[in-house]
Amino acid sequence: NRKYVIAVLPGDGIGLEVMPPALRCLEAAAKRFGFKFEFREYPWASCIYYQEHGVMMPSNWKELLKACDAIYFGAVGDPASVPDHISLWGSLLLFRREFDQFINLRPCRLIPGVPSPLANRQNHTIDFVTVRENTEGEYSSIGGRIFEGTSRETVIQNTVFTRQGVDRVLRYAFELARSRPKKKLTSATKSNGISITMPYWDERVEEMAKEYPDVKVEKYHIDILCAHFVQRPHTFDVVVGSNLFGDILSDLGPACTGTIGIAPSANLNPVSSKDDSAKEWMPSLFEPVHGSAPDIAGKGIANPIGMIWAGQMMLEHLGEKDAATAVIKAIESVLARGGTNLLTPDMQGKGTTQSLGVAIEQEI
Amino acid sequence: NRKYVIAVLPGDGIGLEVMPPALRCLEAAAKRFGFKFEFREYPWASCIYYQEHGVMMPSNWKELLKACDAIYFGAVGDPASVPDHISLWGSLLLFRREFDQFINLRPCRLIPGVPSPLANRQNHTIDFVTVRENTEGEYSSIGGRIFEGTSRETVIQNTVFTRQGVDRVLRYAFELARSRPKKKLTSATKSNGISITMPYWDERVEEMAKEYPDVKVEKYHIDILCAHFVQRPHTFDVVVGSNLFGDILSDLGPACTGTIGIAPSANLNPVSSKDDSAKEWMPSLFEPVHGSAPDIAGKGIANPIGMIWAGQMMLEHLGEKDAATAVIKAIESVLARGGTNLLTPDMQGKGTTQSLGVAIEQEI
Ligand SMILES: CC(C)[C@H](C(=O)O)[C@@H](O)C(=O)O
Ligand SMILES: CC(C)[C@H](C(=O)O)[C@@H](O)C(=O)O
Repeated sequence: NRKYVIAVLPGDGIGLEVMPPALRCLEAAAKRFGFKFEFREYPWASCIYYQEHGVMMPSNWKELLKACDAIYFGAVGDPASVPDHISLWGSLLLFRREFDQFINLRPCRLIPGVPSPLANRQNHTIDFVTVRENTEGEYSSIGGRIFEGTSRETVIQNTVFTRQGVDRVLRYAFELARSRPKKKLTSATKSNGISITMPYWDERVEEMAKEYPDVKVEKYHIDILCAHFVQRPHTFDVVVGSNLFGDILSDLGPACTGTIGIAPSANLNPVSSKDDSAKEWMPSLFEPVHGSAPDIAGKGIANPIGMIWAGQMMLEHLGEKDAATAVIKAIESVLARGGTNLLTPDMQGKGTTQSLGVAIEQEI
Repeated sequence: NRKYVIAVLPGDGIGLEVMPPALRCLEAAAKRFGFKFEFREYPWASCIYYQEHGVMMPSNWKELLKACDAIYFGAVGDPASVPDHISLWGSLLLFRREFDQFINLRPCRLIPGVPSPLANRQNHTIDFVTVRENTEGEYSSIGGRIFEGTSRETVIQNTVFTRQGVDRVLRYAFELARSRPKKKLTSATKSNGISITMPYWDERVEEMAKEYPDVKVEKYHIDILCAHFVQRPHTFDVVVGSNLFGDILSDLGPACTGTIGIAPSANLNPVSSKDDSAKEWMPSLFEPVHGSAPDIAGKGIANPIGMIWAGQMMLEHLGEKDAATAVIKAIESVLARGGTNLLTPDMQGKGTTQSLGVAIEQEI
């Protein structure tokens, strides 16, 4: 009698639209594989909530989320009404930091049926995963301004790499590479230009590589690595990068294989366990890579697959492997069947969130 | 009787290979348009020089370069023998800083004949230019390490934006956008994640936009902007970004239109003038976007067009507009004629540096 309590935070914009079909897919999977979900849906962690309450979340947010097995997150942000640094740092980025979700895992695959902007990709299998450091680096949020409003005005922000922060994400990436058939790890760097933090990153990669002689390690500067994502995406396997570089690569990858609309993101704290009463429990968070997309919000045309695929990663994380497999298979077979009337506009179709979501739900 | 003194620094790797054909193209243009070049070729600013002398350059390098009208730079770097931070910060990055070459201008065009990895690009004109801040930002080189070698080890690097530094590159970009038919400026940011420096960049963009009501301004976070470079490169006109973001975008753009091998880079100090005896003269530097490419060095197959096109930008800068036009026309017509035997491998051909260079030279 397996039961999972899930905090559901639809957020803003298309987050509100892709969440309902995704929840139905999860329900369908639970039904088929004999377990139960309790979805606790909260309207906070959204700009809608902020406009009413002047804060992004109620003060007991941490308690409420820690009562759950995982967090299922839509998208947050509405720059027209609330500055991004308030909405993001008051929700998503805060969760990553507070729950120490130090791994951001983002698979990228070329799925038959999804039109890719790249020519001649049919002959290749593209199937890699980005492992992004998710708590420090360029997103330190420390720094400030001096001589404000004058011609000497100077603004400084620190990038912070810690031994623990770098090593744990590299460790995860090396282990993941080892577990995959290609056993290849690509590290994103920019040590030729960013001359203090990035050489440190490189050093830690080299150091850890000694423990993984079976993993083929390569290092590229972020500029040329972005170029290679376009020119030979099929050659990548596990790609590891800092908070910023991982962010860039995990949008670029799905853009190359077709659309960011299908890309999922798992924000993991892989060392916290609900069964370990000695340590504070810190839930992981699952979300689509895309944001709230104010430009298409309200039209009912957002691609629900990013949200559904994130649900698939949550199922994996919860240990429901068979259900996870069923969900990804359903996504694949619906996409392969495809058709202009089913695919959403980001996949060059005329379909709706609703109809694409239902098709996947039925397939499960 | 126009004569230009040019410091020629071939550098390392393929820099040594693409320089000779490029110099021949410049000579051809000079001959046709009735002016003269004096090329002062120096073997320093290279890892070859470093290995012999233990330094990247002779102590009077500044004097030698300031005696010239411009610097024509190949590529530097040989990570196998000299760490990048020594070779780059001891040459190219030092020049940018010391000569205050605060604009890095990098045009990106889809040129008929160059195979692009993007599908269906034939119907579109892709013609944009990246304006990269070239002296500060993420390339500050200030910061350091603490608790070295322990589990508390922490490495910090500062990103530094100054009012003057940001405003002058934005001013240049706005003026450039105003001068072009599309009058559109895209600003790269990441103010949702990098919460101190990037919001400042955005503020300065908004402030200056008020002075340019005729310029259409848009702002994108770097992650989604990279995705848009792949998905709709034809919609961009002038793209402005920080040192790091400009670096990334100016590799990604040419990768989308075909190859980094043809992309040029002008490192400009647009306010320094040789005629102004009151201020120190600071020459500008012209280089291909590609690096020294140790993997293909010595094979004679490097694409010489990046170097030649950089020469074209130098001609523009020197005021030789007709010669500049002739060079870009020659590049275009040779590429349009194309053919497997002429195009270098980065353009899916079997051609050599030598034969492609000669073809362009003859066309001029
Ligand atoms: C070699 C490297 C330091 C340099 C940079 O990042 O500026 C290069 O990538 C460039 O784009 O000119
Ligand atoms: C919304 C933004 C702060 C966020 C990030 O940069 O981390 C997003 O782009 C992501 O990739 O999850």
